[in-house]
Amino acid sequence: MIIVLRPDATEAQISHIIDKVTKLGLKPMVSRGVERTIIGLIGPEDVIQAQPLEAYPGVEKVMPILKPFKLVSRDFRPQSSVIDLGNGVKIGGEKIIVMAGPCSVENRDGLIAIAKKVKAMGASVLRGGAFKPRTSPYSFQGLGEEGLKYLDAARKETGLLIVTELMDIRNIELVVKYADIIQIGARNMQNFDLLKEVGKIKKPILLKRGMSSTIKEFLMSAEYIASEGNLNIILCERGIRTFEDFTRFTFDVNAIPAVKSLSHLPIIADPSHGTGKWNLVSAVSKAAIAAGADGIIVEVHSNPEEAFSDGEQSLLPENFGKMIDDLKKVAEAVGRKL
Amino acid sequence: MIIVLRPDATEAQISHIIDKVTKLGLKPMVSRGVERTIIGLIGPEDVIQAQPLEAYPGVEKVMPILKPFKLVSRDFRPQSSVIDLGNGVKIGGEKIIVMAGPCSVENRDGLIAIAKKVKAMGASVLRGGAFKPRTSPYSFQGLGEEGLKYLDAARKETGLLIVTELMDIRNIELVVKYADIIQIGARNMQNFDLLKEVGKIKKPILLKRGMSSTIKEFLMSAEYIASEGNLNIILCERGIRTFEDFTRFTFDVNAIPAVKSLSHLPIIADPSHGTGKWNLVSAVSKAAIAAGADGIIVEVHSNPEEAFSDGEQSLLPENFGKMIDDLKKVAEAVGRKL
Amino acid sequence: MIIVLRPDATEAQISHIIDKVTKLGLKPMVSRGVERTIIGLIGPEDVIQAQPLEAYPGVEKVMPILKPFKLVSRDFRPQSSVIDLGNGVKIGGEKIIVMAGPCSVENRDGLIAIAKKVKAMGASVLRGGAFKPRTSPYSFQGLGEEGLKYLDAARKETGLLIVTELMDIRNIELVVKYADIIQIGARNMQNFDLLKEVGKIKKPILLKRGMSSTIKEFLMSAEYIASEGNLNIILCERGIRTFEDFTRFTFDVNAIPAVKSLSHLPIIADPSHGTGKWNLVSAVSKAAIAAGADGIIVEVHSNPEEAFSDGEQSLLPENFGKMIDDLKKVAEAVGRKL
Amino acid sequence: MIIVLRPDATEAQISHIIDKVTKLGLKPMVSRGVERTIIGLIGPEDVIQAQPLEAYPGVEKVMPILKPFKLVSRDFRPQSSVIDLGNGVKIGGEKIIVMAGPCSVENRDGLIAIAKKVKAMGASVLRGGAFKPRTSPYSFQGLGEEGLKYLDAARKETGLLIVTELMDIRNIELVVKYADIIQIGARNMQNFDLLKEVGKIKKPILLKRGMSSTIKEFLMSAEYIASEGNLNIILCERGIRTFEDFTRFTFDVNAIPAVKSLSHLPIIADPSHGTGKWNLVSAVSKAAIAAGADGIIVEVHSNPEEAFSDGEQSLLPENFGKMIDDLKKVAEAVGRKL
Repeated sequence: MIIVLRPDATEAQISHIIDKVTKLGLKPMVSRGVERTIIGLIGPEDVIQAQPLEAYPGVEKVMPILKPFKLVSRDFRPQSSVIDLGNGVKIGGEKIIVMAGPCSVENRDGLIAIAKKVKAMGASVLRGGAFKPRTSPYSFQGLGEEGLKYLDAARKETGLLIVTELMDIRNIELVVKYADIIQIGARNMQNFDLLKEVGKIKKPILLKRGMSSTIKEFLMSAEYIASEGNLNIILCERGIRTFEDFTRFTFDVNAIPAVKSLSHLPIIADPSHGTGKWNLVSAVSKAAIAAGADGIIVEVHSNPEEAFSDGEQSLLPENFGKMIDDLKKVAEAVGRKL
Repeated sequence: MIIVLRPDATEAQISHIIDKVTKLGLKPMVSRGVERTIIGLIGPEDVIQAQPLEAYPGVEKVMPILKPFKLVSRDFRPQSSVIDLGNGVKIGGEKIIVMAGPCSVENRDGLIAIAKKVKAMGASVLRGGAFKPRTSPYSFQGLGEEGLKYLDAARKETGLLIVTELMDIRNIELVVKYADIIQIGARNMQNFDLLKEVGKIKKPILLKRGMSSTIKEFLMSAEYIASEGNLNIILCERGIRTFEDFTRFTFDVNAIPAVKSLSHLPIIADPSHGTGKWNLVSAVSKAAIAAGADGIIVEVHSNPEEAFSDGEQSLLPENFGKMIDDLKKVAEAVGRKL
Repeated sequence: MIIVLRPDATEAQISHIIDKVTKLGLKPMVSRGVERTIIGLIGPEDVIQAQPLEAYPGVEKVMPILKPFKLVSRDFRPQSSVIDLGNGVKIGGEKIIVMAGPCSVENRDGLIAIAKKVKAMGASVLRGGAFKPRTSPYSFQGLGEEGLKYLDAARKETGLLIVTELMDIRNIELVVKYADIIQIGARNMQNFDLLKEVGKIKKPILLKRGMSSTIKEFLMSAEYIASEGNLNIILCERGIRTFEDFTRFTFDVNAIPAVKSLSHLPIIADPSHGTGKWNLVSAVSKAAIAAGADGIIVEVHSNPEEAFSDGEQSLLPENFGKMIDDLKKVAEAVGRKL
Repeated sequence: MIIVLRPDATEAQISHIIDKVTKLGLKPMVSRGVERTIIGLIGPEDVIQAQPLEAYPGVEKVMPILKPFKLVSRDFRPQSSVIDLGNGVKIGGEKIIVMAGPCSVENRDGLIAIAKKVKAMGASVLRGGAFKPRTSPYSFQGLGEEGLKYLDAARKETGLLIVTELMDIRNIELVVKYADIIQIGARNMQNFDLLKEVGKIKKPILLKRGMSSTIKEFLMSAEYIASEGNLNIILCERGIRTFEDFTRFTFDVNAIPAVKSLSHLPIIADPSHGTGKWNLVSAVSKAAIAAGADGIIVEVHSNPEEAFSDGEQSLLPENFGKMIDDLKKVAEAVGRKL
């Protein structure tokens, strides 16, 4: 940590800071420049970070040196993590994983039908929401446990793994019972109590980036899960909120190599939410794979115009199939398989 | 709802849309311009909004006509709501309400001391977090129920009302037991299950705007609470996330008159989070009152450099007192009292 | 400047950096922590800032200590600048200055009529665009020199000072001939050649903040003008671009006290562009004055529905008059006059 | 254009609007819903767009139906444009074009050396700034005409085409004399006078997206150039400004397929500015090509740590060469050549 003092900081203020930090067991290194004095602090980073140093008299600003995350950082584990999802499916290695399915689980037969199609086209995980975070209280809120049962039926029929969202901490046992991968949605990325609870289970967690979260905050939320003991975390870039309104969100493709440089965890892309327009999904999926993503999660619906949610960003199965053919070529071009 | 068709939309596609919406009980009005055909839909707005019209073949875009919120809108209730907080304190009327206190509850005696000071200076509500949403799992997470007990003790000593944050739905009974006003923090503004639960109680809810939420989404989250029966909602503008990094957030002063024009609910300002710098708090508080805010919520700490959280944005009691004197004059200038 | 090294930085890389910066006349101070080595640089800041230190092998990040602006900073001149606009009108002191008029100059008689009205209501400067920056090439582009002549006629009739925008560097003599204050618009805030040219004249410059400029970049653009010799600069906060789309821009009220803390230059507010909605202009004007602004610049039009531009954000003269009455009270409440 | 009336709009207000628009030669279509009356306008879109309809009494909001750009839109020209850059180099077709070189032109020999290297590795255009837009007036501002002469020398030595930035309208003849492609930088994307001037020449224009410009505004700026007669426009996505601060800008990969769907113009990617970090450039270049970009423009420097500008985002020639090898595979995977 570096403390930059104001140009009018007094000697008394400087001494006060030195005393305080010394008592905390830190070693201050004072450097007096022409225009500013700065104090570097050496010692345990957690002790340093806990201090509200900007509140000290005479301080102009405080600059952290170290990254605030530990367990999920590449400094902690230099090799990329490969996470076993069950059924022989692994994410983070050579193979790129495709998760596909409808936004919401709507009915049993439709779900099984779409599950069969996406499996035949190359998906290994079925997505589908039983509990839906909707902006309006008057919109469809999901089928709840009934939806989970349909997902279970689709799994039994197809052998696909299931990823579904957990929104309410009170439903954790229920969702864990049915899901192979527990999704934490963008709106809950900083629901810290929920993060701690899923940190206590062992199943893989799909953590979506919050729509206004920085990459650092995203990794700090993963750190919450990791700090409770669960390192089976799959990160997901799903678009951030910007001023651009032609697309629903701005897919942050920079985040893929950035996260790869900072963390050992796998990261996948959600081009359906990242664009909000089905006709941009294929291009952005290709971009994500080319940039190094370990997988994609895509909304596919047999009849988007009757979807209960997100119809405008869902692919028809035939378009999904065509996209997968394209993605295979891109995956190979970057030394991966799909 | 207005459906704008693509320039190449076929007659078959147009007929298909007309058929579909007619079956849903809506009345389509077709208007054929030189470059585009558009279809207006007349009928129950909730039926219309539930359709993924952008997924229909031939559709270029869909434009909503009506605001998506109802119970919280000024169309629904033209007069401004005045909410009774207890103890004779009301918000939304002529009197501007001051909520003040430390970011976190840290210890019993310190809390009571600061409570006495802010009360003497004009506050009628004591703020203080017992459960703290922290970006890092390694930061202080709050004292939990012990903190709530200290708040209760401070209430008994001073007669101040208590506002404190509810983060975890499992703690709702606990927090309701101690708090006069339940705060839903910015990170939980779209924790829809939590919103529904606090909609079932009768105590006033302080709903903070999410850091990347539009004004519409903010009001939709209030609508979640209202739709369960609780209209005792106090909105709080606390700064949004933008590219500006000199301040912690960008306090959106536009939101104050904008919300007042759209909704009958009272709105207060949080200049501590909205700026992140204690030396900007007074100027932004004055601005908020001048713009029409019904109150402010401010972090005050007797010794910011030893605060467990947010020390850099906390006012010393003497600065808080000076600010209140200034705010009284501004309140009077806009026809209010403080 | 602080250089933070990567955890895997080698001794050879560290020596290489030390050699390089020593040759540049800088004094490196090396501090070896447990997890990172950091190097502080002491010496002339302009030499340091010119080096692409992040490109050196082994470097993780580089953190500047000092603010990059000098002449416009409060460190350079602790007292607030008061700028003489002519006609006895001064900005930056006790008196709050009102600039008002139509977005575009449209015709001679209408301009003179509105000038008389805003003067009677308290304005001391007439605004009006003769050259208009319009998003579309098919929109009205301004009357050019004819518009400047109408402004001149209005000045002669009313005694108001004239502020008008300079867009094209080739028109500088023309605009200087007619205007009392030269406006540099938001879209030209980083048109550095234009900034340098207006730095060579002596007339006051009204510099609007770019819609995506940080406060630092805003002050750096002022520094461009100042570095050529013209310190008669009036800054103008006019709203920044964010995700919020209910308002045209987000008026950054934080910027007012922030700029006041960093710079000695006066700052005014443009609530017309800052909100884009005439019914929010009064509330945001009051907020800006309460926050410490030295003036406002407002669009007023006798017949907004026939305005050639920005009709939706223009006040009718009667609403402007009412607003000025309110602003007088707010100005007094914060110890100013209007 | 659709006019949505307020719920309290009177019959007199409705009649007033109908009268007004009828006199303008437009045909109003009134539709009275339960909660709102709306008026659709049919007629010449340019007449409609010029009216400040939101300023009419009784109007709640106005929603445009048509895109505001014409000449650059895909509705106007359905086939993708292929632009001849000279020397047999064409952009917009099967072949992906690589533009590479230093940020600033620094000296003759260094420039020629790097030009030879990037040519050997696959570039067909040499980039290099002779006039540099720098945030600080104290930073290196470019060599001016001397720099243009060095570019000319490098062209003669290598046969590469030259792209360089025009900042100051007064230098247009000078830059046109030396450059094959004229670059309009992000900070000048809305310098409308400059756009009009480069619309009058015939040389290809490389138009960079403004850092806070929407896709629509980007295309409107291209429309400015086109409306003066020059349709030889190459668009360039170079990153937008968001809250994310780990990267210098957020490269908006969505914009590539979005622009392709809206416009017939070619679009290239600038991953150097789009990320600001050399170690992310390769991944984002691959992403851009996979998403459909027609080319890339990349900063390459033989010795980034001595670059006069942007050293931290420049590739070493060997990394550039390695990247080109990777890009060739990605280009092939999406049916292109490089």
